[in-house]
Amino acid sequence: MVTAAGLRELLEAGRYQDIKAAFENVPAADAARMLLELPERQRALVFRLLDKDIALLAFEQLEPADQQELLEALQDHEVLHLLEGMSADDRARLLDEMPAKVATRLLARLTPENREATALLLGYAPETAGRIMTPDYISLRASMTAREALEKIRRAGVDSETIYYLYVTDEARRLQGVLSLRQLVLADPDAVVGDLAERNVIHVHTDTDQEQAARLIEMHDLLAIPVVDSENRLVGIVTVDDAVDVLDRETTEDFARLAAMSPAETGDQYFRLSFLGRLVRRLPWLVVLLVAQVLSGGLISLYEQTLADVIALAVFIPMIMATSGNTGAQSVTLAVRGLATGEVEPRHFWRVFAQEIATGFGLGLVLGAVASLVALLITGDPRLGMAVAAAIWGNVIVVGGIGTLLPFILRAARVDPAVASAPLITTLGDAVSLLIYFNAARILYGL
Amino acid sequence: MVTAAGLRELLEAGRYQDIKAAFENVPAADAARMLLELPERQRALVFRLLDKDIALLAFEQLEPADQQELLEALQDHEVLHLLEGMSADDRARLLDEMPAKVATRLLARLTPENREATALLLGYAPETAGRIMTPDYISLRASMTAREALEKIRRAGVDSETIYYLYVTDEARRLQGVLSLRQLVLADPDAVVGDLAERNVIHVHTDTDQEQAARLIEMHDLLAIPVVDSENRLVGIVTVDDAVDVLDRETTEDFARLAAMSPAETGDQYFRLSFLGRLVRRLPWLVVLLVAQVLSGGLISLYEQTLADVIALAVFIPMIMATSGNTGAQSVTLAVRGLATGEVEPRHFWRVFAQEIATGFGLGLVLGAVASLVALLITGDPRLGMAVAAAIWGNVIVVGGIGTLLPFILRAARVDPAVASAPLITTLGDAVSLLIYFNAARILYGL
Repeated sequence: MVTAAGLRELLEAGRYQDIKAAFENVPAADAARMLLELPERQRALVFRLLDKDIALLAFEQLEPADQQELLEALQDHEVLHLLEGMSADDRARLLDEMPAKVATRLLARLTPENREATALLLGYAPETAGRIMTPDYISLRASMTAREALEKIRRAGVDSETIYYLYVTDEARRLQGVLSLRQLVLADPDAVVGDLAERNVIHVHTDTDQEQAARLIEMHDLLAIPVVDSENRLVGIVTVDDAVDVLDRETTEDFARLAAMSPAETGDQYFRLSFLGRLVRRLPWLVVLLVAQVLSGGLISLYEQTLADVIALAVFIPMIMATSGNTGAQSVTLAVRGLATGEVEPRHFWRVFAQEIATGFGLGLVLGAVASLVALLITGDPRLGMAVAAAIWGNVIVVGGIGTLLPFILRAARVDPAVASAPLITTLGDAVSLLIYFNAARILYGL
Repeated sequence: MVTAAGLRELLEAGRYQDIKAAFENVPAADAARMLLELPERQRALVFRLLDKDIALLAFEQLEPADQQELLEALQDHEVLHLLEGMSADDRARLLDEMPAKVATRLLARLTPENREATALLLGYAPETAGRIMTPDYISLRASMTAREALEKIRRAGVDSETIYYLYVTDEARRLQGVLSLRQLVLADPDAVVGDLAERNVIHVHTDTDQEQAARLIEMHDLLAIPVVDSENRLVGIVTVDDAVDVLDRETTEDFARLAAMSPAETGDQYFRLSFLGRLVRRLPWLVVLLVAQVLSGGLISLYEQTLADVIALAVFIPMIMATSGNTGAQSVTLAVRGLATGEVEPRHFWRVFAQEIATGFGLGLVLGAVASLVALLITGDPRLGMAVAAAIWGNVIVVGGIGTLLPFILRAARVDPAVASAPLITTLGDAVSLLIYFNAARILYGL
């Protein structure tokens, strides 16, 4: 793989044949990376030098935002050529992220066949199986023999996204069964497809959530999953490589949300967004959570007299707030990740909630003991140690409960559970812990 | 799919044939879930009722911990039968998590062939490609025709984990090329394998990190990746379904570490661990971080006089600490996730660091302005507002820097970057923010 610096040198020296050669025999994903390493102005120039096939494969590996940028630097007929070469699902994803005006104009210029396939996908709601499926699958009739089936695959195979799973459909295109290319190759050539096929097909609907479709592929170790419409007609398949990408994107979204950021529109976290884009992505929750701390601040000012009487109380505010935040982050992360992988389901709520309260009870006991020991060692005042222990113990249980409860509530309301971010739980927990702390102190000090 | 309650009813009624029937034509992953829904005591009983093939497939879908539990309830010959039926990589993973004594005894009783394949895998370091690969692949010679190759696949295919990629090796088993079953099926039967094959094979070594192998599969949209030893001899392949599982486990680990928990040994986050197991998993960091707050507490006690003079300063401690924690969580999450997906590489450090400092500058300006406005509205004291703004502004920049720096340092030291958890960054940030806050207050109030 030629480095970015190497490519730039070749460019400056005008050695265009060497640039073209540098991209040959390089995997498409690496060719795409080589392009991205170049300054934007030079990308289109280098891209034009490439062999048509290599250019198309590399283009398909780029994120939609990078694709769009590259398209803007190309001429209309070059754009059209690229779009025609892409598979329908990738094309739909790209057009989806373009300004509607540009997308419509480009869509209109595609061949009728490609336009239809793309428009079909664009007709489904975003983030559904319908949107990420490819219509390029192979279907067989139950009455075919293995030999006839292989013949059909040889004729149709080149344009299909995967030929490793073959779907049996009836005359109304209704999904009847599935068999693998493996079975077909290993079978007696005279065996009948209908006998070889598995009748019980794991499938999804066009409006199934894309993450759920991807999880089914993962759970059942599939290479693809068929997508049917409301009348059980086969309309496409979602392949495992797209499923992996979906899971990756959804996971990155969860990471972002858990840290109280709005997920980036593109897969790129770091290098795609502008300075302003980064601020817009990160500021909203930060401002909300900052202002929400008026609550904790208000509590402190409510107990200002208590604080003035025993100024040492202030010394342990950071410890109490931090412990509340840390245990809350653990609880909410466990619940959000459990719900995302499907290990935890909404019906498990009571079991999870009970476990979490019990765990909070145990964690609170240990942490409270450690905290009171620390407080005692520092101040020598057992009442302060007891107030700190009470605040931490009560708080860990409450925050563990909220951190578990909130993701389940959000899921029930069809909102991403990760919106119950760790910072949000922490903010709620801060107020609770301070309330317990000051009241325990008042009682213990008889204030 | 029969529900757990339904199965238990059938069990109580002694309707064993119906139980057996309930598991027929159910995908293996669902059969495994049905087993897990049963009380532990009844699992082995139901498992014994199942058809041998169905039992094996369901068994392979269980997590190693559940497999082990089930094995303990079975008799020796049943255990042996199950182990013999598993694929070598799954078998290695199960034996790996067993007590060494039991594993050695079981390993000794396997057929020589299976023992060798398993021991081979167990010889590689945990979390490497060598450990998760399967030795059940198909290799071809370059001189074969497509027809001969398909013949070989028909003979060897049944025992191979995937036959969709075929590897061309020379007489010393060195990896020479790769071609897909798709190419072979679509090719002229007289075409020569050596001509069809792609010479430039994306591959990994036995000691390549498993996550890296999985990321390569993801990046290049592969169904499998070949694994070679130090002499470039083909020794196995890692398949896409195992890659998806690896990525899922590694991601779950990252979620856990970012929330300052030690990752669970098993994939299960919630239901596998005992009460004590959950405490042990969550307590260590909580205790460390709690004690670390002595630092922030010490700072407050250092400035106790300042606080006593302007007691209203205490009101904004939660706001300053929370904002420090929230922005720190964002920075560390972005860096950890970026490094995990491979979008950010160690060589990008300066670029990322500069971006993060610039973003912190902008975030700090806005958040500082909002905070000082809030402080002004509440207290009417502009000096307090300025102290709060200074603390938040300086802090957001510093914490953003630390949150970015630490994951890169950990990666360079070959430690999981996620160990730089959000709570750890928060703890460091707390002290910094309080230091700025009290010093700004001292200057502004002339104390």
